[in-house]
Amino acid sequence: MATQQQTAWIAVDWGTSAMRAWALGADGDILAHARSADGMSVLGSEEYEPALIRLAGAWLPEMPAEPIPVVICGMAGARQGWREAPYRTVPCAPVDSGAGMAVPTADRRLAVRIVPGLRQLDPPDVMRGEETQLAGLAAGLGTTSAIACMPGTHCKWVRLDKGLVTAFRTCMTGELFDVIATRTVLRHSIADEGADDTALMQAVGETLANPQRLAGALFGIRAADIVTGSDPRAARSRLSGLLIGAELAATRQLWESETVHLVGLNTVCRAYALGLESAGSNPVIEDVDKLTLAGLALAKDGGRIV
Amino acid sequence: MATQQQTAWIAVDWGTSAMRAWALGADGDILAHARSADGMSVLGSEEYEPALIRLAGAWLPEMPAEPIPVVICGMAGARQGWREAPYRTVPCAPVDSGAGMAVPTADRRLAVRIVPGLRQLDPPDVMRGEETQLAGLAAGLGTTSAIACMPGTHCKWVRLDKGLVTAFRTCMTGELFDVIATRTVLRHSIADEGADDTALMQAVGETLANPQRLAGALFGIRAADIVTGSDPRAARSRLSGLLIGAELAATRQLWESETVHLVGLNTVCRAYALGLESAGSNPVIEDVDKLTLAGLALAKDGGRIV
Repeated sequence: MATQQQTAWIAVDWGTSAMRAWALGADGDILAHARSADGMSVLGSEEYEPALIRLAGAWLPEMPAEPIPVVICGMAGARQGWREAPYRTVPCAPVDSGAGMAVPTADRRLAVRIVPGLRQLDPPDVMRGEETQLAGLAAGLGTTSAIACMPGTHCKWVRLDKGLVTAFRTCMTGELFDVIATRTVLRHSIADEGADDTALMQAVGETLANPQRLAGALFGIRAADIVTGSDPRAARSRLSGLLIGAELAATRQLWESETVHLVGLNTVCRAYALGLESAGSNPVIEDVDKLTLAGLALAKDGGRIV
Repeated sequence: MATQQQTAWIAVDWGTSAMRAWALGADGDILAHARSADGMSVLGSEEYEPALIRLAGAWLPEMPAEPIPVVICGMAGARQGWREAPYRTVPCAPVDSGAGMAVPTADRRLAVRIVPGLRQLDPPDVMRGEETQLAGLAAGLGTTSAIACMPGTHCKWVRLDKGLVTAFRTCMTGELFDVIATRTVLRHSIADEGADDTALMQAVGETLANPQRLAGALFGIRAADIVTGSDPRAARSRLSGLLIGAELAATRQLWESETVHLVGLNTVCRAYALGLESAGSNPVIEDVDKLTLAGLALAKDGGRIV
């Protein structure tokens, strides 16, 4: 089905295991959306342009007057990605004008730029992709300060202060959950999916109040199953809750005093929201796609937020 | 080379990934020792007897007057092992007379018995194999109370009180180390081997004093490498130290007041000893093979320790 509007630019969130792209009109309308499994982990640097054309080639005019801007955030800018976009150092705005890394392409209809990630020197930390969502969040917040919690494989906790990222911290809770649930002895007691909110909240409370109990509590999931039998869905939520509780204990000074904006997949944000609420916080779940697109639009237009 | 003495009995430590066997003479001398990779994880229940004959068949007399006792501890007694030897429930002696599970064999020269593991009802916990080493340890300690720390894939912390196991707790630190070091993003920054004692002890101190920092400190190993570069051997020791420190924080009430007897592989026991010493404890490293053989001998003779 032909679109009425012509593609004015293309937004891409290019992660480790997947890429997602949107065709946008001149007025910002989303004309098309697609995703593929062509993430960084399966692509050599020469394979990015073909992967982009496969996913978004149909959106390109045959002979545009000017090349179509393609603005990319995420792991495509890593050293092992398409082309390295060197980190910018906090404190700084999440995205900055002129900071995008231009990438030459064989297809002359494209004008590709990759948004650089952010790094923190002390303590050392890095992000790629989240800075773009933060730009979208900061645009909506204006000069209000806030804490962003961005759950995922590597959850980022970010302090936004008058539009600048002033500090952040990564907890690899999502990746820990995955390897523990699928690669350790606990896999025999944990369901592949499903959730039990009561088990989740109880477990969050345990490691949030007593983070030192984590080391012993993990094997307890398996032992409880062997000794008395247990519900594998509740076990799955218990593992998730123990790890989220440990993360909330590690980040308590960030979320105790400010509003937490949750940015990420809905199911995961919901688990964090339950945990934070049970600890007396009042988090807000944001629309992650909206923030990503807003951030990429700001990067396209060279948007310093303040 | 023919042995002068004839095999009086065979001791077997049959784990998840390997089996180890010893031929013993009537006076307790070790006549032969062998190991293979025929662990529980690769054997169906029908394959245990052939695996035993492959490893130890040459030690058997052709026509013994009585069947040769083969006393086995470890995962061969798990439900998914050779034959399930149901757990005994603590508090109890580590091994008990008549509690071994007799296993019929096709080869009539064998009289196989499997030592049962132990379980704790509240909080739920289980062990298989360590009870035999504990029997050896308890035999040496007599009525002295002590704490055993048994590092490995799943580290067991055990309270021995006048020869009885009264309580224990499992921390899956070894397995966590393996999956984090080899299956997460940290693998890019962690050496396959090597150690740095300074990095280890510093990391132990960090999570022992502040266990809530673990969740943030783990990704910090990767971030430090990206931001400033880091020594992969020191990173390996740092990961080990962070996890051991978290375990020591979880078990502090056990080791603060009593002598800790370390039972396990030497390299791993050494890391725990460094951590415990830096926290003011004064642990003793035991000879694990000696304890295993002493425990299996007690199981053979039906040895209640007290």
